[in-house]
Amino acid sequence: MAVSGEVIIVGGGIIGLASAWRCLQAGLTVTVFDPDPTRAAAFAAAGMLTPVTEAYWGEEDLIAVSTASMRRYAGFVAELEAVTGLDVDLRTSGVLVVAFDNDDLEVIEDLFRLHESCGLPSRRLRGRECRAVEPLLTPTTRGGVLAPDDGSVNPRRVLGALSRAVELSGGSLVCQQVRELRIQGDRVEGVLTDDGVAHGADVVVLTAGAWTPLVRGVPEADRPPVRPVKGQILRMTSRLHSHHPGITVRGFVRGSHVYIVPRSDSEVVIGATSEERGFSRQVTGWGVNELLRDALTLIPGLGESELTECRAGLRPGTPDNGPVVGWGRTEGLYLATGHFRHGVLLAPITAEAVAADLAGRPAPAEIGAFRPGRFVGEFVP
Amino acid sequence: MAVSGEVIIVGGGIIGLASAWRCLQAGLTVTVFDPDPTRAAAFAAAGMLTPVTEAYWGEEDLIAVSTASMRRYAGFVAELEAVTGLDVDLRTSGVLVVAFDNDDLEVIEDLFRLHESCGLPSRRLRGRECRAVEPLLTPTTRGGVLAPDDGSVNPRRVLGALSRAVELSGGSLVCQQVRELRIQGDRVEGVLTDDGVAHGADVVVLTAGAWTPLVRGVPEADRPPVRPVKGQILRMTSRLHSHHPGITVRGFVRGSHVYIVPRSDSEVVIGATSEERGFSRQVTGWGVNELLRDALTLIPGLGESELTECRAGLRPGTPDNGPVVGWGRTEGLYLATGHFRHGVLLAPITAEAVAADLAGRPAPAEIGAFRPGRFVGEFVP
Repeated sequence: MAVSGEVIIVGGGIIGLASAWRCLQAGLTVTVFDPDPTRAAAFAAAGMLTPVTEAYWGEEDLIAVSTASMRRYAGFVAELEAVTGLDVDLRTSGVLVVAFDNDDLEVIEDLFRLHESCGLPSRRLRGRECRAVEPLLTPTTRGGVLAPDDGSVNPRRVLGALSRAVELSGGSLVCQQVRELRIQGDRVEGVLTDDGVAHGADVVVLTAGAWTPLVRGVPEADRPPVRPVKGQILRMTSRLHSHHPGITVRGFVRGSHVYIVPRSDSEVVIGATSEERGFSRQVTGWGVNELLRDALTLIPGLGESELTECRAGLRPGTPDNGPVVGWGRTEGLYLATGHFRHGVLLAPITAEAVAADLAGRPAPAEIGAFRPGRFVGEFVP
Repeated sequence: MAVSGEVIIVGGGIIGLASAWRCLQAGLTVTVFDPDPTRAAAFAAAGMLTPVTEAYWGEEDLIAVSTASMRRYAGFVAELEAVTGLDVDLRTSGVLVVAFDNDDLEVIEDLFRLHESCGLPSRRLRGRECRAVEPLLTPTTRGGVLAPDDGSVNPRRVLGALSRAVELSGGSLVCQQVRELRIQGDRVEGVLTDDGVAHGADVVVLTAGAWTPLVRGVPEADRPPVRPVKGQILRMTSRLHSHHPGITVRGFVRGSHVYIVPRSDSEVVIGATSEERGFSRQVTGWGVNELLRDALTLIPGLGESELTECRAGLRPGTPDNGPVVGWGRTEGLYLATGHFRHGVLLAPITAEAVAADLAGRPAPAEIGAFRPGRFVGEFVP
């Protein structure tokens, strides 16, 4: 089905904005509604691009789509930076996963076996080899895995650049809350915003992340089984260059997990908790304590850095941890949500799929495993 | 020496404002200069009123002046609340000091011996008795000391109420930085503010806390040996009443010290580091980590509370940990600074001393040990 005319995108996070940009490039007319872009999961996120170091057993389809999106990243960023003149701090110099004690080392070994089994590029390192890669690591580091092709991007800069790209391409960004999907018969007609105004559209794309189920008026058969998974995350500023890590470190510390993502400037991001707390975005004593404890255990020098931000975001979780991308059963309704931990990484391939589907062109094959409707029979809250 | 006419107070923290209020009540004309009242140490402070539980061996004069100021507190607050109609959340239901392990218990026993030696009111408690007083304490609490007369006040509310009281009494609060003390011959003439305006005065009172040494133009003989001692401090909000402590807890946790100060509303303050870092007020990973680690060890339920503020303040430290209150050698120059950890507690007696000295009446005897000039020969930075 090829679409012409008006497209409304509900949610201006990284999926909504990237999709808007690609749809505009495909010749569509696009309006993005979002009442508060800083609420986006990508605004909180560290921006890791880790198809290898965030791989899990049993998630082969997700590994495939992640790897496919990672292949697109350098081109996606180059195009975005060229169009906007903005630098989004893409770093593709590898990610190191380390273990603090022997139990943690078993997790690392299991991860390495997965990499070997799937043919993912990674290298098993001893403790001293880890410290050669990142000299700020604690001397007690037991061992690790280096994934040379994983990396990171600054997702706030990506959001800013995508907003600029959407505007430069003639799209509209509207700071309004969509209250309700409007349906006429079995066809989408548009949306109603919180100010009571009706906006007509041929296609409505739901990219509201964890908030997607809160959009009213979506028929039950099209309501994706998405739930908020809270992540608390810290931002620090290195006061000394000698205390600034050179590479993203994911660590297992006495059974707990933490990641430390340095930027090319003095920012270091430390994340993240994973909590089922509904829509609460409160920063808690427990969350900050766990993150600092584990990060400072791995890289003690971070203790000297300034703590500049504590925040919580909401990942859109799904039953199989994979996104939901494709046409709904209601005509004109499209879903691109449920990206859980992978929204930043999966933005390029998702946006490509959205634009291809709307333009009636073939979407990337790896998206095939993540179409809506695969959760038939799942409980939808 | 009795003063008539204009008094300029340099610094609108708790000492400056309380002194201004008392001077206005003594019939003086008062102007307080402060460029940023939220920079005040009392704005960061937890507001503990702890002459007993913060007593140290060898500081008998400080214990005496602290106890004397504590005796004035209920009256000071009652008068302030009556004048302004504002509630400053004075709590005088006791403070509990607890030990986490056996080494910490030795610190507690030493503190209790000091209390016995000085005749300070306190009671030695076993672990289970501590938990009867504060049921949220960890079951592993080894023992403690209860000081039934110690307490707390909300220092931000005190600052707000004092500002109101000063204005109601006809005083002026000016949001300007004093750049320089102006001296004519051997007599104070007034101050120069950052906007280049000269303000005349018969008396200038320096109450700029840790920033006092930065006021230019103070003759070397009158420069107090005050240095900034950084304290990082956290504010939390209890989400559940059942997680809100009922009493201020000071704890020793594996050799580290932390305090937890609940308000009558849902706020809980956790403090504080003690760092010699010059005028830096950066919140660091190390500082927040230590405070949360120790507080959550003592009261695990605090982990569920929302972390609402991380801040650092600067205590004005002196060589003997006592304040500097009295006339300088330069005529018309008065010092009221160097209150270190005790500014909130010592505000009533200090303000009384300032007003008495300026009015030519006898000051409280306990201030006698803290007059300027006792540091002759000390290094002044």
